[in-house]
Amino acid sequence: MLYFSVLSALLLLAAGSLAQPTPTFPPFTDPTVSYYAPGIPIETPLPGNYGNYLRPQVHYSPSRYFMNDPNGMHIAPDGTWHIYFQYNPTDPVAGNVHWGHAASQDGYTWTNQKIAIWPPNDYTSVFSGSAVIDVNNTSGFFPDQDNGVVAMYTLAEYPNGTAGNQYQAIAYSRDGGYTFEAYEGNPVINRYNTQFRDPYVHWYAPGGYWVMVLAHSVEFKVEFFTSPDLKEWTAQSNLTRYGVQAVQYECPNLIELPMEGQDEPVWVLQLSVNPGGPLGGSTAQYFPGAFNGTHFEPYDSLTRFTDFGKDSYAGQFFNGIPPGEEQIVMNWASNWQYTNLVPTGNEEYGQFRSAMSVPRCVSLANTTSPASEQTYNWISKPCAIDTVFDTVLASNDTLDNGTVLVDYRDLESGAIYLEVTISNLTLDNPAGSINFTASSSLTGEYLQGGSVVGGVIWLDRGHTYLFPNPLFTDKMSVNGFFGEQSNGTWSMSALIDNSVLEVFGPKYSPAGTASFFPEAPLDTLRIDVGSLAPGATASVQVWGLTATWLDQADENGTVIGNVTQSNGTNGTSPGGYRRSVKLY
Amino acid sequence: MLYFSVLSALLLLAAGSLAQPTPTFPPFTDPTVSYYAPGIPIETPLPGNYGNYLRPQVHYSPSRYFMNDPNGMHIAPDGTWHIYFQYNPTDPVAGNVHWGHAASQDGYTWTNQKIAIWPPNDYTSVFSGSAVIDVNNTSGFFPDQDNGVVAMYTLAEYPNGTAGNQYQAIAYSRDGGYTFEAYEGNPVINRYNTQFRDPYVHWYAPGGYWVMVLAHSVEFKVEFFTSPDLKEWTAQSNLTRYGVQAVQYECPNLIELPMEGQDEPVWVLQLSVNPGGPLGGSTAQYFPGAFNGTHFEPYDSLTRFTDFGKDSYAGQFFNGIPPGEEQIVMNWASNWQYTNLVPTGNEEYGQFRSAMSVPRCVSLANTTSPASEQTYNWISKPCAIDTVFDTVLASNDTLDNGTVLVDYRDLESGAIYLEVTISNLTLDNPAGSINFTASSSLTGEYLQGGSVVGGVIWLDRGHTYLFPNPLFTDKMSVNGFFGEQSNGTWSMSALIDNSVLEVFGPKYSPAGTASFFPEAPLDTLRIDVGSLAPGATASVQVWGLTATWLDQADENGTVIGNVTQSNGTNGTSPGGYRRSVKLY
Repeated sequence: MLYFSVLSALLLLAAGSLAQPTPTFPPFTDPTVSYYAPGIPIETPLPGNYGNYLRPQVHYSPSRYFMNDPNGMHIAPDGTWHIYFQYNPTDPVAGNVHWGHAASQDGYTWTNQKIAIWPPNDYTSVFSGSAVIDVNNTSGFFPDQDNGVVAMYTLAEYPNGTAGNQYQAIAYSRDGGYTFEAYEGNPVINRYNTQFRDPYVHWYAPGGYWVMVLAHSVEFKVEFFTSPDLKEWTAQSNLTRYGVQAVQYECPNLIELPMEGQDEPVWVLQLSVNPGGPLGGSTAQYFPGAFNGTHFEPYDSLTRFTDFGKDSYAGQFFNGIPPGEEQIVMNWASNWQYTNLVPTGNEEYGQFRSAMSVPRCVSLANTTSPASEQTYNWISKPCAIDTVFDTVLASNDTLDNGTVLVDYRDLESGAIYLEVTISNLTLDNPAGSINFTASSSLTGEYLQGGSVVGGVIWLDRGHTYLFPNPLFTDKMSVNGFFGEQSNGTWSMSALIDNSVLEVFGPKYSPAGTASFFPEAPLDTLRIDVGSLAPGATASVQVWGLTATWLDQADENGTVIGNVTQSNGTNGTSPGGYRRSVKLY
Repeated sequence: MLYFSVLSALLLLAAGSLAQPTPTFPPFTDPTVSYYAPGIPIETPLPGNYGNYLRPQVHYSPSRYFMNDPNGMHIAPDGTWHIYFQYNPTDPVAGNVHWGHAASQDGYTWTNQKIAIWPPNDYTSVFSGSAVIDVNNTSGFFPDQDNGVVAMYTLAEYPNGTAGNQYQAIAYSRDGGYTFEAYEGNPVINRYNTQFRDPYVHWYAPGGYWVMVLAHSVEFKVEFFTSPDLKEWTAQSNLTRYGVQAVQYECPNLIELPMEGQDEPVWVLQLSVNPGGPLGGSTAQYFPGAFNGTHFEPYDSLTRFTDFGKDSYAGQFFNGIPPGEEQIVMNWASNWQYTNLVPTGNEEYGQFRSAMSVPRCVSLANTTSPASEQTYNWISKPCAIDTVFDTVLASNDTLDNGTVLVDYRDLESGAIYLEVTISNLTLDNPAGSINFTASSSLTGEYLQGGSVVGGVIWLDRGHTYLFPNPLFTDKMSVNGFFGEQSNGTWSMSALIDNSVLEVFGPKYSPAGTASFFPEAPLDTLRIDVGSLAPGATASVQVWGLTATWLDQADENGTVIGNVTQSNGTNGTSPGGYRRSVKLY
């Protein structure tokens, strides 16, 4: 059995990396028309079952079928968080891509929305892109409002089923991001290029214009554009050949991040690559540098990763957060090596695939190690995670060397957050270790992680057994930072949410993300603190988290989502074409 | 039990990455004097047991105790291969470093030699470095010979047990690399720098001088030097901040590699980093670029890895091979995250730790993917592996979709080499997969690897159970290349040598190295070829390899090594100081 599943699994992976046949370029169809494949709800989200033990409860996952890259992330002027995502609404595998949509008031509790962006015809997918609030109506789409949303995305043609042209289009929403109309002037950028995608748009305040970056995926190149109005784009510069030599560049972000110890934020290019990440498959990197409004120049040639886990890809920063503040990113918590095969795609688990990370608040800091000090460490923490604290499962401020045991079998969400802090460490003798194990009382499976003061931070998903895939790497690790900036403390936290693990080391140290798939729910937590230096002390807190999805579900675990944005055309598409909804 | 071993294991890892206390600098002792710690044989190698089932039989491993980086690698004018290595001759953990030594006529069959280089006093270790043949007697050490050997290495002081000065010294050998005398003018480079090490020297023919590169380990910097005579060194340039942002740079190599499709070789800087490799711990990278005799400029800012496995570090290229030919490298097949803990250090396994890779013949090639074509793929194959072919265990030139089973329980070496080639593939439909599994009939443990045409190449050591360490990552993978340069073939080979696995994908694709530790010998091989494209064919060959170590061993598995280089002072050191052996 293993052989057959391994073979078929791996064969699925081969297709993407091979030479493409010469593409054909069909004529553009009416850009204001949408194609609705049969059987997909148009004016409501798909309902989905969130009641299974593998379903994350404080992470976003699609109601049903397949999700990949986060798209169009923004926080609206009214405070509503919007995430869109690459979405196949008909199958739990990648393909047939639309922009799915969900909204939230807190970044953790999400309401599924109807599909936001549809393809213009039946041979085109709506690939990744971003969205901005056009406060000043630079686009002219919003004569009467200051909260209009413009989405920019790639339309990827597959004439005759083979990869063809990838071009850039925009669509606008006058109802706060729920309903989009395609711009009649689409495409806004078209070069008849088959590997040219993922526009990320951001307002460049010093110049009073929009900047956009997108990927020439197989040329190790990102290109920078500017625009006064989101419609007319001027190519300004290219950045080539940075980061890991992988196969494809995807999902660039250009963002300003606050930097500890200085007033000015630092420009960062975030870039995902797949396949060819060092852990296999997908990975994401960042490059701090200088941006003058048209050209980006990295400060150095180092490759820095945004996460040490294997399941953190295509991260996108939210638009709508003022420069200078911590910026918020969400990553796709999966990996192209196996995402089409993970067990949650089975009917019994709700037939969904992939989750997003929780929102992470990101800033930069230089540390005193190495000697050169220009480290630009990526500091990321779950944003206001206490938003979803439901119950205190354990609290011990004087643990020192010792163990904490928690039985959380009765926790509705099955999701916990633990935090361990070692204090009163000295630079001369910074000793101590933290280990956690979440195990299943039913099967004995367990998920582990840990860290050593000043040393390694690690996680191990290899003792959960529902997904025996040869590419599903079990162990990931990174080195953490302990130095004079650490103020004598070393901490570690972990968010264990049914099938998603996020591990956060002490400040200045990377986070790690890994999906995991046990055969039965994890329900027992053990935390060990050991080998503390003399005088050091440890504290442990464990919280049970809110069941944000079950709280919306009926008794069968089914979540309906938002059906109030309907435009009077509820029901399932009979298939065919329709002009974009006119809201005005 | 697991908890205790995990805790103690991880605490060992913390020390290296912390802030160092202010070093003290003792005065230099007589540079021509060696310190001999008590109980170490001076004029003979340590005997060791090579009879255990975990002992590699075609890989170099030390007779006993601990080995890390390869040093002083060269092929002498008489054709003898010499490897030196970081060696603790008193304990199976890192420390107390000398240069161990072994010699070979074929790169696979090694004869252990007496320790080559000793420290000058009891608070200094002999860290990594290189060796050259001073054919033209530029050094003046060799008035009567053209095969003199000069070793250049780092002396690392540990006054009062804490890390102190690291400075560069040389020693010369007039007997073909067996016995070295320290240069009376040592140190040749000294800056009272505590992170300044691993000189790699190479003859720069266009300039008629020596070039040397070494690492400023914690500054993300390598420095280039030149010398007319190996004694006087002129600092020429620095290269900073390339590759993965890890913690320490180590073991740079500057070498010319032949490049497919062009006459001129390409300069490459190879650089190891630890900790902080993306898979955790140690990793190695390379940077193709231009070298003008004093300055090295990488062609781009990409990070490229020399191996996709977790156990390939500190590789060093052999001196003595003419430029323009394939160059030969050997890597240390372990990882600092766990090398001090692997089970072979136990008495029952011969109390040795770590092995080298087999010699790999390396060249570069640009592939047609990505579109930019400047890929500089690292092409590495085991050099003349047929040297150690002993028996044909299986041979099938018309396997196509199918399975080959091999029982190799009676193979003396326990070491096998398998090669699978798929031919007659087309660019339009390059389909097929290769899987291999080596399992133990006693325990059911197994080691796996495989590849998919045009897709992933993977290995999995996670089903061998003697070393349950949370940092001992089980699964590693990389993307292989299939394109028009592949001539319609896809191949995969694997060298499975008791506790070392080396996997080689098709040409243009990276190799992967992983140590592994089963509880019983692997003795059954299964190879599966499946899902071949119509018209494609497959062939499989499996060889049993020579037991190069057991062939030298007595009936107890003990290998004595070369005792004929004795200078009349056989026996074990009583401890204390002694002036370098004078051979003339």
